[in-house]
Amino acid sequence: MYELIIVGGGPAAMTAAIYAARKELKFALIAPELGGEIVNTSHVENYPGQISITGRELAKSFAEHMKSFNIEHIEDAVTNVKKEGDIFKVKTYGSTYESKTILWATGSNYRSLNIPGEGELRSRGVTYCSICDGPLFKKKTVAVIGTGNSALTSVIYMLDIAKKVYLVGRSAAIRADAMMVDKAKADPKLEILYNSTVRSINGEKRVESITILENGSEKTIPVDGVIINIGHTPITEPIKDIVPLDPSGYAVVDAHNMTSVKGLFAAGDVVNVPYKQIVIATGQGATAALGAYDYVKTLK
Amino acid sequence: MYELIIVGGGPAAMTAAIYAARKELKFALIAPELGGEIVNTSHVENYPGQISITGRELAKSFAEHMKSFNIEHIEDAVTNVKKEGDIFKVKTYGSTYESKTILWATGSNYRSLNIPGEGELRSRGVTYCSICDGPLFKKKTVAVIGTGNSALTSVIYMLDIAKKVYLVGRSAAIRADAMMVDKAKADPKLEILYNSTVRSINGEKRVESITILENGSEKTIPVDGVIINIGHTPITEPIKDIVPLDPSGYAVVDAHNMTSVKGLFAAGDVVNVPYKQIVIATGQGATAALGAYDYVKTLK
Repeated sequence: MYELIIVGGGPAAMTAAIYAARKELKFALIAPELGGEIVNTSHVENYPGQISITGRELAKSFAEHMKSFNIEHIEDAVTNVKKEGDIFKVKTYGSTYESKTILWATGSNYRSLNIPGEGELRSRGVTYCSICDGPLFKKKTVAVIGTGNSALTSVIYMLDIAKKVYLVGRSAAIRADAMMVDKAKADPKLEILYNSTVRSINGEKRVESITILENGSEKTIPVDGVIINIGHTPITEPIKDIVPLDPSGYAVVDAHNMTSVKGLFAAGDVVNVPYKQIVIATGQGATAALGAYDYVKTLK
Repeated sequence: MYELIIVGGGPAAMTAAIYAARKELKFALIAPELGGEIVNTSHVENYPGQISITGRELAKSFAEHMKSFNIEHIEDAVTNVKKEGDIFKVKTYGSTYESKTILWATGSNYRSLNIPGEGELRSRGVTYCSICDGPLFKKKTVAVIGTGNSALTSVIYMLDIAKKVYLVGRSAAIRADAMMVDKAKADPKLEILYNSTVRSINGEKRVESITILENGSEKTIPVDGVIINIGHTPITEPIKDIVPLDPSGYAVVDAHNMTSVKGLFAAGDVVNVPYKQIVIATGQGATAALGAYDYVKTLK
Protein backbone atom coordinates (compact mmCIF):
# COMPACT_ATOMS: atom_id res chain seq x y z
CA MET A 1 0.00 0.00 0.00
CA TYR A 2 1.44 3.33 -1.09
CA GLU A 3 0.66 6.69 0.43
CA LEU A 4 0.91 8.29 -3.01
CA ILE A 5 1.09 7.10 -6.60
CA ILE A 6 2.17 9.72 -9.12
CA VAL A 7 0.96 8.94 -12.64
CA GLY A 8 2.98 10.68 -15.34
CA GLY A 9 6.59 11.48 -16.15
CA GLY A 10 6.63 15.15 -17.13
CA PRO A 11 7.62 18.30 -15.20
CA ALA A 12 4.57 18.25 -12.90
CA ALA A 13 5.07 14.56 -12.03
CA MET A 14 8.84 14.84 -11.51
CA THR A 15 8.46 17.95 -9.33
CA ALA A 16 5.83 16.14 -7.26
CA ALA A 17 8.26 13.24 -6.84
CA ILE A 18 10.98 15.60 -5.55
CA TYR A 19 8.56 17.06 -3.02
CA ALA A 20 7.12 13.67 -2.02
CA ALA A 21 10.64 12.31 -1.47
CA ARG A 22 11.55 15.25 0.75
CA LYS A 23 8.38 14.58 2.74
CA GLU A 24 9.37 10.87 2.96
CA LEU A 25 6.02 9.73 1.64
CA LYS A 26 5.86 6.05 0.67
CA PHE A 27 5.24 6.55 -3.02
CA ALA A 28 5.89 5.39 -6.57
CA LEU A 29 5.85 7.14 -9.92
CA ILE A 30 4.23 5.26 -12.80
CA ALA A 31 5.14 6.37 -16.33
CA PRO A 32 6.38 4.59 -19.44
CA GLU A 33 9.23 7.12 -19.62
CA LEU A 34 10.44 10.35 -18.07
CA GLY A 35 10.42 13.73 -19.77
CA GLY A 36 6.93 14.61 -20.87
CA GLU A 37 5.91 17.06 -23.55
CA ILE A 38 9.00 19.26 -23.10
CA VAL A 39 11.25 16.75 -24.83
CA ASN A 40 9.40 17.80 -28.01
CA THR A 41 10.38 21.44 -27.53
CA SER A 42 13.54 22.52 -29.27
CA HIS A 43 14.56 25.34 -26.94
CA VAL A 44 13.01 26.34 -23.66
CA GLU A 45 13.71 29.98 -22.90
CA ASN A 46 11.11 30.67 -20.24
CA TYR A 47 11.99 28.30 -17.40
CA PRO A 48 13.32 30.80 -14.86
CA GLY A 49 17.04 30.44 -14.24
CA GLN A 50 17.75 28.79 -17.60
CA ILE A 51 18.16 31.48 -20.25
CA SER A 52 18.12 28.91 -23.03
CA ILE A 53 18.12 25.14 -22.72
CA THR A 54 16.89 22.35 -24.95
CA GLY A 55 13.72 20.65 -23.84
CA ARG A 56 15.63 17.41 -23.56
CA GLU A 57 18.31 18.92 -21.34
CA LEU A 58 15.74 20.51 -19.07
CA ALA A 59 13.82 17.25 -18.78
CA LYS A 60 17.08 15.49 -17.99
CA SER A 61 17.90 17.97 -15.23
CA PHE A 62 14.45 17.34 -13.68
CA ALA A 63 14.97 13.57 -13.91
CA GLU A 64 18.44 13.78 -12.36
CA HIS A 65 17.11 15.94 -9.56
CA MET A 66 14.37 13.39 -8.92
CA LYS A 67 16.77 10.45 -9.06
CA SER A 68 19.04 12.11 -6.48
CA PHE A 69 16.40 10.71 -4.10
CA ASN A 70 15.55 7.04 -3.82
CA ILE A 71 12.53 6.99 -6.14
CA GLU A 72 10.53 3.94 -7.18
CA HIS A 73 9.83 4.44 -10.87
CA ILE A 74 7.46 1.84 -12.32
CA GLU A 75 7.91 1.85 -16.10
CA ASP A 76 4.34 1.10 -17.10
CA ALA A 77 1.17 2.90 -18.11
CA VAL A 78 -2.02 3.20 -16.07
CA THR A 79 -5.14 1.90 -17.76
CA ASN A 80 -7.70 2.38 -15.00
CA VAL A 81 -8.15 3.91 -11.55
CA LYS A 82 -10.88 2.87 -9.13
CA LYS A 83 -11.64 3.99 -5.59
CA GLU A 84 -12.79 1.38 -3.08
CA GLY A 85 -13.52 2.93 0.30
CA ASP A 86 -10.56 5.21 0.99
CA ILE A 87 -8.22 3.19 -1.22
CA PHE A 88 -7.36 3.72 -4.86
CA LYS A 89 -6.73 0.68 -7.07
CA VAL A 90 -4.44 1.55 -9.93
CA LYS A 91 -4.39 -0.89 -12.82
CA THR A 92 -1.50 -0.86 -15.28
CA TYR A 93 -0.72 -3.11 -18.21
CA GLY A 94 1.53 -5.14 -15.94
CA SER A 95 -0.01 -5.08 -12.49
CA THR A 96 -2.34 -3.48 -9.95
CA TYR A 97 -1.26 -1.15 -7.15
CA GLU A 98 -3.00 0.28 -4.09
CA SER A 99 -2.56 3.78 -2.74
CA LYS A 100 -4.11 6.25 -0.33
CA THR A 101 -3.72 9.12 -2.81
CA ILE A 102 -3.18 9.56 -6.53
CA LEU A 103 -1.59 12.41 -8.40
CA TRP A 104 -2.81 12.36 -11.99
CA ALA A 105 -0.20 14.23 -14.04
CA THR A 106 -0.40 12.59 -17.43
CA GLY A 107 -0.50 15.80 -19.46
CA SER A 108 -2.30 16.16 -22.74
CA ASN A 109 -1.71 15.49 -26.36
CA TYR A 110 -1.92 18.28 -28.92
CA ARG A 111 -4.71 17.52 -31.25
CA SER A 112 -3.17 16.73 -34.62
CA LEU A 113 -4.35 17.54 -38.13
CA ASN A 114 -3.18 14.07 -39.17
CA ILE A 115 -1.97 15.24 -42.58
CA PRO A 116 1.19 14.58 -44.61
CA GLY A 117 4.21 16.59 -43.46
CA GLU A 118 2.85 17.34 -40.00
CA GLY A 119 4.85 14.70 -38.15
CA GLU A 120 7.89 14.90 -40.41
CA LEU A 121 8.33 18.67 -39.98
CA ARG A 122 7.47 18.85 -36.30
CA SER A 123 9.99 21.15 -34.53
CA ARG A 124 11.19 22.14 -38.00
CA GLY A 125 8.58 24.82 -38.52
CA VAL A 126 5.55 22.89 -37.30
CA THR A 127 4.56 23.73 -33.75
CA TYR A 128 1.51 23.50 -31.56
CA CYS A 129 2.58 26.21 -29.13
CA SER A 130 3.02 29.85 -30.16
CA ILE A 131 4.10 30.90 -26.67
CA CYS A 132 6.92 28.35 -26.87
CA ASP A 133 8.04 28.72 -30.45
CA GLY A 134 6.46 31.92 -31.81
CA PRO A 135 9.66 33.98 -31.39
CA LEU A 136 11.35 31.63 -33.88
CA PHE A 137 9.16 33.17 -36.59
CA LYS A 138 10.02 36.80 -35.92
CA LYS A 139 9.68 38.79 -39.17
CA LYS A 140 8.66 35.62 -41.02
CA THR A 141 5.41 34.30 -42.49
CA VAL A 142 3.31 31.87 -40.48
CA ALA A 143 0.02 30.08 -40.84
CA VAL A 144 -2.11 29.55 -37.74
CA ILE A 145 -4.51 26.64 -38.09
CA GLY A 146 -7.70 26.84 -36.03
CA THR A 147 -10.33 29.44 -35.13
CA GLY A 148 -10.74 29.08 -31.37
CA ASN A 149 -9.34 31.28 -28.64
CA SER A 150 -5.99 29.56 -28.60
CA ALA A 151 -5.62 30.07 -32.37
CA LEU A 152 -6.57 33.74 -32.08
CA THR A 153 -4.21 34.16 -29.16
CA SER A 154 -1.50 32.83 -31.43
CA VAL A 155 -2.60 35.10 -34.29
CA ILE A 156 -2.58 38.23 -32.13
CA TYR A 157 0.78 37.32 -30.69
CA MET A 158 2.28 36.54 -34.09
CA LEU A 159 0.90 39.76 -35.64
CA ASP A 160 3.12 41.61 -33.18
CA ILE A 161 6.29 39.89 -34.35
CA ALA A 162 5.76 38.15 -37.70
CA LYS A 163 5.87 39.68 -41.17
CA LYS A 164 2.60 38.08 -42.26
CA VAL A 165 0.07 35.81 -40.60
CA TYR A 166 -2.47 33.51 -42.26
CA LEU A 167 -5.40 32.30 -40.21
CA VAL A 168 -6.77 29.09 -41.68
CA GLY A 169 -10.23 27.93 -40.61
CA ARG A 170 -12.48 25.17 -41.86
CA SER A 171 -15.72 27.16 -41.57
CA ALA A 172 -17.00 30.57 -42.65
CA ALA A 173 -16.84 31.86 -39.08
CA ILE A 174 -14.28 32.32 -36.34
CA ARG A 175 -15.21 30.80 -33.02
CA ALA A 176 -12.93 32.93 -30.85
CA ASP A 177 -14.06 35.86 -28.68
CA ALA A 178 -15.27 38.75 -30.86
CA MET A 179 -12.92 41.17 -29.17
CA MET A 180 -9.93 39.09 -30.15
CA VAL A 181 -11.24 38.66 -33.67
CA ASP A 182 -11.83 42.42 -34.06
CA LYS A 183 -8.35 43.16 -32.87
CA ALA A 184 -6.79 40.63 -35.21
CA LYS A 185 -8.81 41.78 -38.20
CA ALA A 186 -7.71 45.39 -37.71
CA ASP A 187 -4.16 44.41 -38.62
CA PRO A 188 -3.44 44.44 -42.38
CA LYS A 189 -0.74 41.79 -41.89
CA LEU A 190 -3.49 39.22 -41.25
CA GLU A 191 -5.06 37.25 -44.08
CA ILE A 192 -7.94 34.96 -43.17
CA LEU A 193 -8.64 31.87 -45.25
CA TYR A 194 -12.20 30.74 -44.52
CA ASN A 195 -13.72 27.43 -45.55
CA SER A 196 -10.22 26.08 -45.87
CA THR A 197 -8.88 22.69 -44.98
CA VAL A 198 -5.15 22.06 -44.74
CA ARG A 199 -4.23 19.09 -46.90
CA SER A 200 -0.47 18.94 -46.40
CA ILE A 201 2.53 20.73 -44.93
CA ASN A 202 5.40 20.82 -47.36
CA GLY A 203 9.16 21.28 -47.14
CA GLU A 204 12.46 19.48 -47.41
CA LYS A 205 14.40 20.27 -44.24
CA ARG A 206 12.03 22.89 -42.86
CA VAL A 207 8.48 24.06 -43.53
CA GLU A 208 8.25 25.80 -46.91
CA SER A 209 4.52 25.89 -47.66
CA ILE A 210 1.07 24.54 -46.91
CA THR A 211 -1.42 23.17 -49.37
CA ILE A 212 -5.04 23.99 -48.61
CA LEU A 213 -8.42 23.24 -50.10
CA GLU A 214 -10.28 26.58 -50.12
CA ASN A 215 -13.93 26.48 -51.15
CA GLY A 216 -13.15 23.35 -53.15
CA SER A 217 -10.05 24.53 -54.98
CA GLU A 218 -6.54 23.55 -53.98
CA LYS A 219 -3.75 26.08 -53.55
CA THR A 220 -0.26 26.19 -52.08
CA ILE A 221 0.89 29.08 -49.89
CA PRO A 222 4.54 29.70 -48.96
CA VAL A 223 5.02 29.92 -45.16
CA ASP A 224 7.98 29.58 -42.78
CA GLY A 225 5.98 28.18 -39.93
CA VAL A 226 2.72 26.42 -39.13
CA ILE A 227 1.10 26.81 -35.72
CA ILE A 228 -1.57 24.18 -35.19
CA ASN A 229 -4.09 25.24 -32.54
CA ILE A 230 -7.00 22.93 -32.95
CA GLY A 231 -7.09 21.96 -29.32
CA HIS A 232 -5.59 19.59 -26.83
CA THR A 233 -6.71 16.24 -25.70
CA PRO A 234 -6.11 15.82 -21.97
CA ILE A 235 -5.20 12.29 -21.02
CA THR A 236 -7.97 11.54 -18.54
CA GLU A 237 -9.58 8.41 -19.98
CA PRO A 238 -8.42 6.12 -17.12
CA ILE A 239 -9.97 8.35 -14.43
CA LYS A 240 -13.04 9.64 -16.25
CA ASP A 241 -15.39 7.20 -14.51
CA ILE A 242 -14.50 8.38 -11.02
CA VAL A 243 -13.80 12.12 -11.33
CA PRO A 244 -15.97 14.83 -12.89
CA LEU A 245 -14.09 16.54 -15.73
CA ASP A 246 -14.78 19.83 -17.48
CA PRO A 247 -16.53 19.74 -20.89
CA SER A 248 -13.16 19.43 -22.67
CA GLY A 249 -12.05 16.55 -20.47
CA TYR A 250 -9.69 18.49 -18.18
CA ALA A 251 -9.45 17.85 -14.46
CA VAL A 252 -10.86 20.54 -12.16
CA VAL A 253 -8.88 21.09 -8.95
CA ASP A 254 -8.94 23.20 -5.79
CA ALA A 255 -6.16 25.32 -4.26
CA HIS A 256 -4.38 22.13 -3.13
CA ASN A 257 -4.68 20.68 -6.64
CA MET A 258 -7.18 18.10 -5.35
CA THR A 259 -10.13 17.08 -7.52
CA SER A 260 -13.61 16.67 -6.06
CA VAL A 261 -12.64 13.05 -5.33
CA LYS A 262 -10.90 13.07 -1.92
CA GLY A 263 -7.31 11.94 -2.28
CA LEU A 264 -7.24 12.24 -6.07
CA PHE A 265 -4.99 15.12 -7.10
CA ALA A 266 -4.15 16.42 -10.57
CA ALA A 267 -1.37 18.69 -11.84
CA GLY A 268 0.11 19.99 -15.07
CA ASP A 269 -1.42 20.15 -18.52
CA VAL A 270 -4.17 17.72 -17.57
CA VAL A 271 -5.70 20.44 -15.35
CA ASN A 272 -8.07 23.11 -16.71
CA VAL A 273 -5.69 26.03 -15.95
CA PRO A 274 -5.66 28.76 -18.59
CA TYR A 275 -1.96 28.51 -19.52
CA LYS A 276 0.05 25.36 -20.12
CA GLN A 277 3.67 26.14 -19.27
CA ILE A 278 6.52 24.17 -17.76
CA VAL A 279 6.95 26.52 -14.82
CA ILE A 280 3.21 26.46 -14.16
CA ALA A 281 3.17 22.65 -14.27
CA THR A 282 6.09 22.38 -11.83
CA GLY A 283 4.35 24.77 -9.43
CA GLN A 284 1.24 22.61 -9.55
CA GLY A 285 3.27 19.44 -9.04
CA ALA A 286 4.75 20.89 -5.86
CA THR A 287 1.34 22.02 -4.62
CA ALA A 288 -0.23 18.62 -5.33
CA ALA A 289 2.53 16.68 -3.53
CA LEU A 290 2.28 18.91 -0.47
CA GLY A 291 -1.51 18.64 -0.67
CA ALA A 292 -1.29 14.84 -0.85
CA TYR A 293 1.05 14.82 2.15
CA ASP A 294 -1.36 16.93 4.22
CA TYR A 295 -4.30 14.77 3.11
CA VAL A 296 -2.53 11.51 4.00
CA LYS A 297 -1.79 12.86 7.47
CA THR A 298 -5.53 13.45 8.02
CA LEU A 299 -6.25 9.75 7.34
CA LYS A 300 -4.34 8.47 10.33
CA MET B 1 1.64 54.83 -19.76
CA TYR B 2 2.73 51.24 -19.18
CA GLU B 3 0.75 48.17 -20.10
CA LEU B 4 2.05 46.42 -16.97
CA ILE B 5 3.89 47.42 -13.82
CA ILE B 6 5.35 44.55 -11.83
CA VAL B 7 5.85 45.44 -8.17
CA GLY B 8 8.42 43.24 -6.43
CA GLY B 9 11.83 41.72 -7.11
CA GLY B 10 11.56 38.06 -6.05
CA PRO B 11 11.03 34.85 -8.04
CA ALA B 12 7.38 35.58 -8.92
CA ALA B 13 8.19 39.13 -10.10
CA MET B 14 11.28 38.11 -12.07
CA THR B 15 9.43 35.23 -13.75
CA ALA B 16 6.61 37.60 -14.68
CA ALA B 17 9.18 39.97 -16.17
CA ILE B 18 10.61 37.16 -18.31
CA TYR B 19 7.13 36.31 -19.60
CA ALA B 20 6.13 39.97 -20.10
CA ALA B 21 9.32 40.61 -22.05
CA ARG B 22 8.67 37.61 -24.29
CA LYS B 23 5.17 38.97 -24.90
CA GLU B 24 6.72 42.39 -25.68
CA LEU B 25 4.48 44.16 -23.21
CA LYS B 26 5.42 47.76 -22.43
CA PHE B 27 6.26 47.27 -18.79
CA ALA B 28 8.50 48.14 -15.86
CA LEU B 29 9.48 46.32 -12.69
CA ILE B 30 9.56 48.41 -9.50
CA ALA B 31 11.59 47.02 -6.60
CA PRO B 32 14.29 48.42 -4.33
CA GLU B 33 16.43 45.40 -5.22
CA LEU B 34 16.28 42.03 -6.96
CA GLY B 35 16.35 38.64 -5.27
CA GLY B 36 13.54 38.45 -2.78
CA GLU B 37 13.34 36.21 0.23
CA ILE B 38 15.42 33.42 -1.33
CA VAL B 39 18.67 35.38 -0.91
CA ASN B 40 18.22 34.67 2.82
CA THR B 41 18.09 30.90 2.23
CA SER B 42 21.35 28.99 2.56
CA HIS B 43 20.62 26.08 0.22
CA VAL B 44 17.64 25.50 -2.05
CA GLU B 45 17.18 21.82 -2.88
CA ASN B 46 13.64 21.76 -4.22
CA TYR B 47 13.73 24.03 -7.27
CA PRO B 48 13.35 21.42 -10.04
CA GLY B 49 16.48 21.04 -12.13
CA GLN B 50 18.83 22.35 -9.43
CA ILE B 51 19.74 19.54 -7.05
CA SER B 52 21.40 21.96 -4.62
CA ILE B 53 22.06 25.66 -5.09
CA THR B 54 22.50 28.57 -2.70
CA GLY B 55 19.58 30.96 -2.50
CA ARG B 56 21.85 33.74 -3.71
CA GLU B 57 22.97 31.78 -6.76
CA LEU B 58 19.41 30.83 -7.67
CA ALA B 59 18.24 34.45 -7.32
CA LYS B 60 21.18 35.54 -9.45
CA SER B 61 20.24 33.03 -12.18
CA PHE B 62 16.68 34.43 -12.21
CA ALA B 63 17.99 38.01 -12.39
CA GLU B 64 20.41 37.16 -15.21
CA HIS B 65 17.63 35.43 -17.12
CA MET B 66 15.45 38.51 -16.72
CA LYS B 67 18.24 40.89 -17.69
CA SER B 68 18.87 38.90 -20.88
CA PHE B 69 15.83 40.89 -22.05
CA ASN B 70 15.69 44.68 -22.15
CA ILE B 71 13.95 45.26 -18.82
CA GLU B 72 13.18 48.61 -17.23
CA HIS B 73 13.94 48.17 -13.54
CA ILE B 74 12.91 51.14 -11.40
CA GLU B 75 14.83 50.95 -8.11
CA ASP B 76 12.18 52.34 -5.82
CA ALA B 77 9.39 51.15 -3.52
CA VAL B 78 5.66 51.53 -4.10
CA THR B 79 3.76 53.35 -1.36
CA ASN B 80 0.28 53.43 -2.84
CA VAL B 81 -1.81 52.14 -5.74
CA LYS B 82 -5.03 53.78 -6.91
CA LYS B 83 -7.34 52.97 -9.81
CA GLU B 84 -8.88 55.84 -11.77
CA GLY B 85 -11.18 54.60 -14.51
CA ASP B 86 -9.26 51.82 -16.21
CA ILE B 87 -5.88 53.26 -15.22
CA PHE B 88 -3.75 52.43 -12.19
CA LYS B 89 -1.71 55.21 -10.56
CA VAL B 90 1.33 53.81 -8.82
CA LYS B 91 2.99 56.10 -6.30
CA THR B 92 6.56 55.43 -5.20
CA TYR B 93 8.87 57.41 -2.93
CA GLY B 94 10.36 59.03 -6.00
CA SER B 95 7.59 59.39 -8.56
CA THR B 96 4.17 58.36 -9.86
CA TYR B 97 3.60 55.95 -12.76
CA GLU B 98 0.53 54.99 -14.80
CA SER B 99 -0.29 51.53 -16.05
CA LYS B 100 -3.13 49.51 -17.51
CA THR B 101 -2.35 46.54 -15.28
CA ILE B 102 -0.44 45.86 -12.08
CA LEU B 103 1.18 42.69 -10.85
CA TRP B 104 1.56 42.84 -7.09
CA ALA B 105 4.39 40.45 -6.17
CA THR B 106 5.89 42.03 -3.08
CA GLY B 107 6.15 38.89 -0.99
CA SER B 108 5.97 38.99 2.76
CA ASN B 109 7.81 40.08 5.88
CA TYR B 110 8.84 37.87 8.79
CA ARG B 111 6.12 37.47 11.39
CA SER B 112 7.00 38.67 14.87
CA LEU B 113 6.34 36.97 18.21
CA ASN B 114 5.31 40.36 19.65
CA ILE B 115 6.78 39.62 23.08
CA PRO B 116 8.91 41.67 25.46
CA GLY B 117 12.54 41.88 24.41
CA GLU B 118 11.96 40.96 20.76
CA GLY B 119 12.11 44.48 19.37
CA GLU B 120 14.63 45.77 21.90
CA LEU B 121 17.15 43.01 21.18
CA ARG B 122 16.66 42.81 17.43
CA SER B 123 20.06 42.60 15.75
CA ARG B 124 21.53 42.11 19.22
CA GLY B 125 20.90 38.39 19.27
CA VAL B 126 17.36 38.36 17.86
CA THR B 127 17.12 37.54 14.16
CA TYR B 128 14.59 36.20 11.66
CA CYS B 129 17.18 34.99 9.18
CA SER B 130 19.63 32.25 10.08
CA ILE B 131 21.57 32.52 6.85
CA CYS B 132 22.10 36.25 7.42
CA ASP B 133 23.00 36.15 11.10
CA GLY B 134 23.64 32.50 11.98
CA PRO B 135 27.44 32.83 11.78
CA LEU B 136 27.26 35.30 14.70
CA PHE B 137 26.32 32.36 16.92
CA LYS B 138 29.25 30.12 16.06
CA LYS B 139 30.01 27.81 19.00
CA LYS B 140 27.23 29.48 20.97
CA THR B 141 23.77 28.44 22.11
CA VAL B 142 20.73 29.43 20.08
CA ALA B 143 16.99 28.88 20.20
CA VAL B 144 15.07 28.48 16.96
CA ILE B 145 11.39 29.35 17.36
CA GLY B 146 8.96 27.58 15.01
CA THR B 147 8.44 24.09 13.56
CA GLY B 148 7.99 24.62 9.82
CA ASN B 149 10.49 24.09 7.04
CA SER B 150 12.16 27.45 7.51
CA ALA B 151 12.67 26.74 11.22
CA LEU B 152 14.14 23.30 10.47
CA THR B 153 16.39 24.79 7.79
CA SER B 154 17.71 27.12 10.48
CA VAL B 155 18.11 24.26 12.96
CA ILE B 156 20.09 22.10 10.53
CA TYR B 157 22.29 25.03 9.59
CA MET B 158 22.90 26.03 13.21
CA LEU B 159 23.66 22.43 14.28
CA ASP B 160 26.67 22.68 11.97
CA ILE B 161 28.11 25.72 13.68
CA ALA B 162 26.52 26.26 17.10
CA LYS B 163 27.39 24.57 20.39
CA LYS B 164 23.79 23.78 21.22
CA VAL B 165 20.45 24.35 19.48
CA TYR B 166 16.99 24.48 21.06
CA LEU B 167 13.96 24.05 18.84
CA VAL B 168 10.93 25.64 20.47
CA GLY B 169 7.47 24.77 19.16
CA ARG B 170 3.99 25.50 20.47
CA SER B 171 2.56 22.09 19.60
CA ALA B 172 3.52 18.46 20.18
CA ALA B 173 4.47 17.97 16.52
CA ILE B 174 6.94 19.35 13.99
CA ARG B 175 5.43 20.44 10.70
CA ALA B 176 8.60 20.42 8.59
CA ASP B 177 9.54 17.82 5.95
CA ALA B 178 10.26 14.43 7.56
CA MET B 179 13.69 14.28 5.91
CA MET B 180 14.74 17.48 7.62
CA VAL B 181 13.30 16.44 10.96
CA ASP B 182 15.15 13.10 10.84
CA LYS B 183 18.39 14.83 10.00
CA ALA B 184 18.02 17.33 12.84
CA LYS B 185 16.98 14.76 15.43
CA ALA B 186 20.05 12.64 14.70
CA ASP B 187 22.25 15.36 16.16
CA PRO B 188 22.67 15.18 19.97
CA LYS B 189 23.29 18.93 20.08
CA LEU B 190 19.57 19.46 19.39
CA GLU B 191 17.06 19.74 22.21
CA ILE B 192 13.40 20.04 21.23
CA LEU B 193 10.97 21.84 23.52
CA TYR B 194 7.44 20.83 22.54
CA ASN B 195 4.23 22.50 23.76
CA SER B 196 6.28 25.57 24.55
CA THR B 197 5.41 29.24 24.13
CA VAL B 198 8.07 31.91 24.32
CA ARG B 199 7.03 34.59 26.83
CA SER B 200 10.00 36.94 26.68
CA ILE B 201 13.49 37.40 25.35
CA ASN B 202 15.79 38.66 28.06
CA GLY B 203 19.11 40.48 28.16
CA GLU B 204 20.75 43.79 28.96
CA LYS B 205 22.86 44.67 25.93
CA ARG B 206 22.46 41.39 24.08
CA VAL B 207 20.25 38.31 24.30
CA GLU B 208 21.01 36.34 27.47
CA SER B 209 18.03 34.02 27.83
CA ILE B 210 14.46 33.22 26.84
CA THR B 211 11.56 32.57 29.16
CA ILE B 212 9.17 29.90 27.97
CA LEU B 213 5.94 28.37 29.18
CA GLU B 214 6.38 24.62 28.69
CA ASN B 215 3.32 22.49 29.39
CA GLY B 216 2.09 25.22 31.72
CA SER B 217 5.26 25.80 33.76
CA GLU B 218 7.54 28.74 33.19
CA LYS B 219 11.28 28.33 32.82
CA THR B 220 14.20 30.45 31.69
CA ILE B 221 16.87 29.04 29.40
CA PRO B 222 20.21 30.77 28.79
CA VAL B 223 20.82 31.38 25.07
CA ASP B 224 23.06 33.68 23.06
CA GLY B 225 20.74 34.02 20.12
CA VAL B 226 17.09 33.65 19.10
CA ILE B 227 16.09 32.81 15.53
CA ILE B 228 12.39 33.44 14.96
CA ASN B 229 10.89 31.42 12.07
CA ILE B 230 7.13 31.48 12.69
CA GLY B 231 5.92 32.52 9.29
CA HIS B 232 5.28 35.64 7.35
CA THR B 233 3.03 38.69 6.99
CA PRO B 234 2.09 39.54 3.39
CA ILE B 235 3.04 43.02 2.16
CA THR B 236 -0.30 44.33 0.94
CA GLU B 237 -0.60 47.67 2.75
CA PRO B 238 -0.26 49.82 -0.42
CA ILE B 239 -3.13 48.00 -2.18
CA LYS B 240 -5.39 47.26 0.78
CA ASP B 241 -7.78 50.14 0.04
CA ILE B 242 -8.58 48.96 -3.47
CA VAL B 243 -8.52 45.16 -3.29
CA PRO B 244 -10.32 42.81 -0.88
CA LEU B 245 -7.79 40.70 1.07
CA ASP B 246 -8.29 37.51 3.08
CA PRO B 247 -8.44 37.74 6.90
CA SER B 248 -4.65 37.33 7.12
CA GLY B 249 -4.02 40.07 4.58
CA TYR B 250 -3.19 37.82 1.61
CA ALA B 251 -4.42 38.61 -1.89
CA VAL B 252 -7.15 36.38 -3.34
CA VAL B 253 -6.81 35.60 -7.04
CA ASP B 254 -8.58 33.69 -9.81
CA ALA B 255 -7.17 31.12 -12.25
CA HIS B 256 -5.37 33.93 -14.13
CA ASN B 257 -3.92 35.27 -10.86
CA MET B 258 -6.15 38.33 -11.16
CA THR B 259 -7.73 39.81 -8.02
CA SER B 260 -11.35 40.93 -7.98
CA VAL B 261 -10.08 44.32 -9.22
CA LYS B 262 -9.90 44.10 -13.02
CA GLY B 263 -6.32 44.48 -14.19
CA LEU B 264 -4.78 44.04 -10.74
CA PHE B 265 -2.90 40.74 -10.56
CA ALA B 266 -1.00 39.18 -7.67
CA ALA B 267 1.56 36.37 -7.50
CA GLY B 268 3.97 34.71 -5.11
CA ASP B 269 4.05 34.71 -1.32
CA VAL B 270 1.60 37.62 -1.19
CA VAL B 271 -1.20 35.36 -2.49
CA ASN B 272 -3.32 33.13 -0.21
CA VAL B 273 -2.11 29.86 -1.75
CA PRO B 274 -1.65 27.06 0.80
CA TYR B 275 2.09 26.53 0.18
CA LYS B 276 4.79 29.17 -0.22
CA GLN B 277 7.52 27.72 -2.39
CA ILE B 278 9.87 29.17 -4.98
CA VAL B 279 8.57 26.91 -7.74
CA ILE B 280 4.98 27.76 -6.86
CA ALA B 281 5.76 31.49 -6.90
CA THR B 282 7.43 31.25 -10.31
CA GLY B 283 4.42 29.37 -11.70
CA GLN B 284 2.14 32.12 -10.45
CA GLY B 285 4.38 34.84 -11.87
CA ALA B 286 4.11 33.23 -15.31
CA THR B 287 0.33 32.87 -15.04
CA ALA B 288 -0.10 36.48 -13.92
CA ALA B 289 2.04 37.90 -16.74
CA LEU B 290 0.13 35.88 -19.34
CA GLY B 291 -3.13 36.89 -17.67
CA ALA B 292 -2.10 40.57 -17.76
CA TYR B 293 -1.19 40.24 -21.44
CA ASP B 294 -4.58 38.75 -22.30
CA TYR B 295 -6.36 41.38 -20.21
CA VAL B 296 -4.50 44.27 -21.85
CA LYS B 297 -5.48 42.96 -25.27
CA THR B 298 -9.18 43.16 -24.34
CA LEU B 299 -8.83 46.89 -23.52
CA LYS B 300 -8.06 48.04 -27.03
